Amino acid sequence: MMEPGHAAPQQLSIGQLLFSPAQYDPRQEIVYRDRRLTYADLRERVQRLAGALTALGVGQGDCVAVLDWDSHRYLECFFGVPMLGAVLQTVNIRLSPAQIRYTLEQTRPRVLLVHPDFGGVLDEVGALDFVPVIVPMPDEDSADACAYENRLAAAAPVFAFPTFPEETTATTFHTTGTTGLPKQVYFSHRQIVLHTLSLIATYATQPGHGRFDRSDVYMPVTPMFHVHAWGIPFMATALGVKQVYPGRYEAARLLALQRREGVTFSHCVPTILKMMLDDPSGGELTGWKIVVGGAVLTRSLAAEAQARGIDIFCGYGMSETCPLLLISHLDPAALGDDDALDVRVMAGRQAILTDVRIVDEAMQDVAIGERGELVARAPWLTRGYRGNEAASAELWRGGYLHTGDIATRNAGGYVRIVDRLKDVIKSGGEWISSVEVEDLLSRHPAVAECAVIGVPDPKWGERPLALVVARTGVACDPAALGAFLGGFVDQGRLPRYAVPDRFEVVAALDRTSVGKIDKK
Amino acid sequence: MMEPGHAAPQQLSIGQLLFSPAQYDPRQEIVYRDRRLTYADLRERVQRLAGALTALGVGQGDCVAVLDWDSHRYLECFFGVPMLGAVLQTVNIRLSPAQIRYTLEQTRPRVLLVHPDFGGVLDEVGALDFVPVIVPMPDEDSADACAYENRLAAAAPVFAFPTFPEETTATTFHTTGTTGLPKQVYFSHRQIVLHTLSLIATYATQPGHGRFDRSDVYMPVTPMFHVHAWGIPFMATALGVKQVYPGRYEAARLLALQRREGVTFSHCVPTILKMMLDDPSGGELTGWKIVVGGAVLTRSLAAEAQARGIDIFCGYGMSETCPLLLISHLDPAALGDDDALDVRVMAGRQAILTDVRIVDEAMQDVAIGERGELVARAPWLTRGYRGNEAASAELWRGGYLHTGDIATRNAGGYVRIVDRLKDVIKSGGEWISSVEVEDLLSRHPAVAECAVIGVPDPKWGERPLALVVARTGVACDPAALGAFLGGFVDQGRLPRYAVPDRFEVVAALDRTSVGKIDKK
Repeated sequence: MMEPGHAAPQQLSIGQLLFSPAQYDPRQEIVYRDRRLTYADLRERVQRLAGALTALGVGQGDCVAVLDWDSHRYLECFFGVPMLGAVLQTVNIRLSPAQIRYTLEQTRPRVLLVHPDFGGVLDEVGALDFVPVIVPMPDEDSADACAYENRLAAAAPVFAFPTFPEETTATTFHTTGTTGLPKQVYFSHRQIVLHTLSLIATYATQPGHGRFDRSDVYMPVTPMFHVHAWGIPFMATALGVKQVYPGRYEAARLLALQRREGVTFSHCVPTILKMMLDDPSGGELTGWKIVVGGAVLTRSLAAEAQARGIDIFCGYGMSETCPLLLISHLDPAALGDDDALDVRVMAGRQAILTDVRIVDEAMQDVAIGERGELVARAPWLTRGYRGNEAASAELWRGGYLHTGDIATRNAGGYVRIVDRLKDVIKSGGEWISSVEVEDLLSRHPAVAECAVIGVPDPKWGERPLALVVARTGVACDPAALGAFLGGFVDQGRLPRYAVPDRFEVVAALDRTSVGKIDKK
Repeated sequence: MMEPGHAAPQQLSIGQLLFSPAQYDPRQEIVYRDRRLTYADLRERVQRLAGALTALGVGQGDCVAVLDWDSHRYLECFFGVPMLGAVLQTVNIRLSPAQIRYTLEQTRPRVLLVHPDFGGVLDEVGALDFVPVIVPMPDEDSADACAYENRLAAAAPVFAFPTFPEETTATTFHTTGTTGLPKQVYFSHRQIVLHTLSLIATYATQPGHGRFDRSDVYMPVTPMFHVHAWGIPFMATALGVKQVYPGRYEAARLLALQRREGVTFSHCVPTILKMMLDDPSGGELTGWKIVVGGAVLTRSLAAEAQARGIDIFCGYGMSETCPLLLISHLDPAALGDDDALDVRVMAGRQAILTDVRIVDEAMQDVAIGERGELVARAPWLTRGYRGNEAASAELWRGGYLHTGDIATRNAGGYVRIVDRLKDVIKSGGEWISSVEVEDLLSRHPAVAECAVIGVPDPKWGERPLALVVARTGVACDPAALGAFLGGFVDQGRLPRYAVPDRFEVVAALDRTSVGKIDKK
């Protein structure tokens, strides 16, 4: 295939995202709470980090794990660790200590970079079956020569990065299902570069709203351990924009940073959006574009965000998908439509290079508007779960990655997630979408949050039960909620059998480690 | 490297650029002169073309050559031929018949798609040493069952495209140097997809000016046989924008199409830009973004375009580079600067994923402002010249593609092309840049065009000679031209020894097949 004298195909590498845009203003800032770095600093610190890790014995194929809040240090690790040919493990600090021990023992990192806030978590994790080097990452100056900042200071400002095949694993982390052991997904340099390019091609070319370009100011509000903060730090760095890293998420601090730094682009799960909107320090938030994912965004929460001036829309993906698959950008002509909000809360339309299908159990495409499982192909999806042949083959059966989500697609190409395949309530031969009922129920003024779950029923197999958190200071009458949903039945928007038989008012809903409601 | 049960890496394919954005308005138009297709038509016609070519025996690895003006048919071939796993040869119809015969006999296309305007060229080419199928591509309806349109009509509207490795060659064409045999470059599916994504990431993220996004209307004014019309048809299709194909370039038709269809984005060489600006039908051209490449854009021509309302800027690349390497986008803060035009006529700053260096003969980076050869790496550069080991190794010596251009780079990262390595005039141990002298000389009101060449000199080795085409109706006095350049010497902008000893007024300058001035 290769003729003599010809060059080999040039390999993709995360380092290209850091160094090829070196032309953009090197004085542009990266802010961590009250600290300010420039891109010139970032490029130097990534090289110092590589030198420091090399001095600790980290080589190609070794794993380096990070436990930190969102910080400039984490961003340095996003680049410095993979650019060494090493694997960055982003530890989900919300897992249980037993789960964290499992994930660490599966990946055996040579070095653990740990913010002092997670020292207690590591204590609970207890003795590991291997001995990593622990590098503390305090926010404050430290006299400890082993601390991150001092190790960087001791390293050379220039590092000769190795070259390696683009299929080299760059990052790894564990999915956070509600049952079973965490499963390990992994992404290569090639995959992260292609994912970044598709993010740019999807966000930057969108006219009208929801655009991300070189004039934006970025702040993540999804943790960097959660699917690379959806990959946006790679995009932001490649475009040389100002970046703001907020540390631990506290609503008042996030809102203060947004105002102080002029943040224009963020992403978060619905729970965090609600936390920010409910914070008394909020006020007007015009000029802030926020893409919501991780769980279905209700129309009422979206309307609340929009009323505050936020350009709100959704993205869809999961740990296994890096995560970009869908974005609910509007067509320019639809911007002023009354129905625009209904589109903004959808999962969205497929991003460039993705192939997203809604299929029946025989892997045949269902008709427009019909329900089926959402399956996908794209060059950046995890190729499987490390060390788990059966789950990998199941994930990729039929040559497409199975998301386990039930969805429909309309004529405009927009996908709506109806439910998790496993959360569908099977009642008398009919499938009831808990998400659909939750969305309608959440529109009732007395409902702050709700979850609809299936409970065993001798006659129907399963019947829906609604768990409702009442809005503070508002009376919540179960009979009124049933009547409220009955109104949607009368309008033909909900089948009669989907109205829950029981409504229970509860103090709070259980959540998984990433803030999703735990229906188990 | 691959665990059992895991999926293989997903291969990149040009088909992804056509089908993954299928969500965008399928009624969006593709205009060829007076004919209108939709994107839905395009996707169907690409499948029909694949069926028609398959019926003619075209299979994976076979070559299909096209001789056409810029048309929707050519766009269909950009996709349909490579998506078969076949190789699209874009024939440079401005080469001599002997050169065209050489390029056809080197690639041996199984099918030749030929616009009737090029029947005469093929007659002059004469008998080939193989027998291709000729498919005529008339603009008008034809009773000939062998004609392109009738073959498409006879084929099925759906085609099951094969899958193949992303390194499969997608396109090939020949460089058009002024000496020697044409050299064959080639590009894979992987390379064209990555090139397209980098084009998007470079153009779409640019705030302030020179942006290309989904709201643009595109018309090529660089032929589709010339480095894939710089790759922009792939970008335009991937973003689902309106596209306008103008057929043969005639200034009045280009300008009329621009007005009628609301064209906002084009690209061309300086000669064509001048032809359009000089056309009496021109008028105001506000809202038209034009990127100029292929030859140095003089400040005076750029100023003329800008005065007419054009957002003018430059790109840099060559046949060997697919071609994207540099774009002269301004930083947003520089938009209103007095010096902005000086930046707009530069070759530009490197595009994402490219690594562009200015080096001395030992491949060491020269200092800011110093001259050296421009060398580059990017994932989409030709890996060599087919069947030419020596020229391939020479092109890629030291691991970088050598452009043969002498350039400088300023502190802002902008590259200026000083001259072709081989066009530098060596006078008394000093190097004189012919381009630099031409740029200054072209500012004289009597000068329509000029070329500065080196002529042998017994004392100095070489001395510059200026060939000048006078502006119609303006007296052109050689002595005045010398005095005019002397003014720049007095300002310190030109060395004294760079002023030509002689100025010859000529009727016209010789040009190569792509419109560059032929200095041989």
